[in-house]
Amino acid sequence: MAERHGSLVSFRPDIRVVDCTLRDGGLVNNFRFTDEFVKDLYLANIKAGVDYMEFGYKASKEIFNPDSFGKWKFCDEKDIRAIVGDNKTDMKISVMADVGRTDFKKDIVPRKDSVIDMIRVATYINTIPAAIEMIEDAKQKGYEVTVNIMAVSKVSDAELVSGLELLAQSSVDVIYLVDSFGVFYPEQVEKLVNQYMEVANKYGKKIGIHAHNNQQLAFANTIEAISRGASYLDATVSGLGRGAGNCYMESLLSFLRNPKYNKIAIFNFVEKHILALKEEGNKWGFDIPYLLTGILNSHPSTAIQFIKDGRSDYSIFYQELIDNVL
Amino acid sequence: MAERHGSLVSFRPDIRVVDCTLRDGGLVNNFRFTDEFVKDLYLANIKAGVDYMEFGYKASKEIFNPDSFGKWKFCDEKDIRAIVGDNKTDMKISVMADVGRTDFKKDIVPRKDSVIDMIRVATYINTIPAAIEMIEDAKQKGYEVTVNIMAVSKVSDAELVSGLELLAQSSVDVIYLVDSFGVFYPEQVEKLVNQYMEVANKYGKKIGIHAHNNQQLAFANTIEAISRGASYLDATVSGLGRGAGNCYMESLLSFLRNPKYNKIAIFNFVEKHILALKEEGNKWGFDIPYLLTGILNSHPSTAIQFIKDGRSDYSIFYQELIDNVL
Repeated sequence: MAERHGSLVSFRPDIRVVDCTLRDGGLVNNFRFTDEFVKDLYLANIKAGVDYMEFGYKASKEIFNPDSFGKWKFCDEKDIRAIVGDNKTDMKISVMADVGRTDFKKDIVPRKDSVIDMIRVATYINTIPAAIEMIEDAKQKGYEVTVNIMAVSKVSDAELVSGLELLAQSSVDVIYLVDSFGVFYPEQVEKLVNQYMEVANKYGKKIGIHAHNNQQLAFANTIEAISRGASYLDATVSGLGRGAGNCYMESLLSFLRNPKYNKIAIFNFVEKHILALKEEGNKWGFDIPYLLTGILNSHPSTAIQFIKDGRSDYSIFYQELIDNVL
Repeated sequence: MAERHGSLVSFRPDIRVVDCTLRDGGLVNNFRFTDEFVKDLYLANIKAGVDYMEFGYKASKEIFNPDSFGKWKFCDEKDIRAIVGDNKTDMKISVMADVGRTDFKKDIVPRKDSVIDMIRVATYINTIPAAIEMIEDAKQKGYEVTVNIMAVSKVSDAELVSGLELLAQSSVDVIYLVDSFGVFYPEQVEKLVNQYMEVANKYGKKIGIHAHNNQQLAFANTIEAISRGASYLDATVSGLGRGAGNCYMESLLSFLRNPKYNKIAIFNFVEKHILALKEEGNKWGFDIPYLLTGILNSHPSTAIQFIKDGRSDYSIFYQELIDNVL
């Protein structure tokens, strides 16, 4: 058994905190954040010492109708610059690009012409070759590049071994362990991060963690991953994100010991913006339906619908899930 | 480093699930549960395979005015029997007795005359001799007996070593690790359970875990404790309990693999009773103020007041805590 990395008193200088509030949170409100929300989040993240702020997706306007989504689904250069100018700060900017849903050759411009610092490629196990094409394109354009292997709880051990090996041989900088469906217990995260770290160390890559809160384990799984060597840590303010949401930024910054991190600005942002978002009827966060899709290793969409429909017949829902999922 | 006990696929026959919904949840509504609530919970717990149901406290009526609390603060024999009759079921019944707040010589009758099976003594580190007096009294009267060392996050290592040794030499059956203030990370629970288990194994005792959800770690800490050998597991329906609440029974039963456990009855209970309890304005569960008292190793009372006052100035509250607590 590998020992834990770091201690609960010291800090690891390799840690990077990535705020995904707009990107994963955009899945809650179709990316319709006000400019004030985005600007205040940007300023709060800078004050908080967050290392990367993700503004949203680089989605294809051929596939997704811009009228149906807020602008952070597309992250046009001009829209980011309207918030950050030339971003003359220590915080870097990232966007996510889904395999098959991004016109990356056109929409991702050379880094020297962009305010974006990092491209995060999101792939399923069966699209890794396409992901690698995007990784090499972004790397060649001068970006830092990460890759998320999504829904890894659905991937066989043998496939994961091959996929990790392929990605580690690419130019990618960071490989993310992603618990898309909120399935994993910390004990499993321990094993998976150990496995990811072994490949990462062989090829000089870093490992990231992106957790979901279906079982109220997003924070627990994130700190377990840290303890096993993961260094890129995704979190969102108040866990804002699809379904059960993500690891709370408030919790993560409370856990990290590097004095550069300061949670006060995040609290003030919550008071000003997150409470209002909830009052407007946006729903996210741990609840029984998400627990059920989590333990059944199932996409949260059915649970999101259950809650949207105002249902509370949990037992019936559980039987529906078993009938349709297992 | 000790290996994990059990696997994620098999089950451990030594596991006992203890439902504390009435007892810890009573701290939310002053123990004013309707008889229908209590009766339905009793029936749900039986169907769910719960091993022990805790009905409340055996509080002294000399100290606490019965007019100010619901009856489960006192757990009179006749009140329990009004719900369970002679409890001719496989589920056992427990009550909690606080050191210094229970007329145990009078109010705890011989087990042969009682429907109660287990007395749970709650003590601070500095009242362990008084706790042992209560333990021996209850044991002599024929009960199973457990002891909670509360607020152990405030206890020095040396004191804890002495306290554990003293308790392990008593007649107590189970010693509980209690994270009263929701301070601990799973990494700390690992170390503490290992320490408790070492003493327990020496004297043939068992170890229990009672977690609080200040950092959204109640479930994570409970399964970490299981994995390190704890076998008595406290949980409450929907985490109902003081402040940030407890480990969700729904999550715990979903985790355990013993086919005797069945979470369906608990879901139906939530639908019928817990949603109503929330709508009536009872407040519990994870929120930023509890995170703050948790990370500062502080009693949740200030956070409970903050929420009761309808405040949302988290940063100010945090400064108040630092001024008054550290």
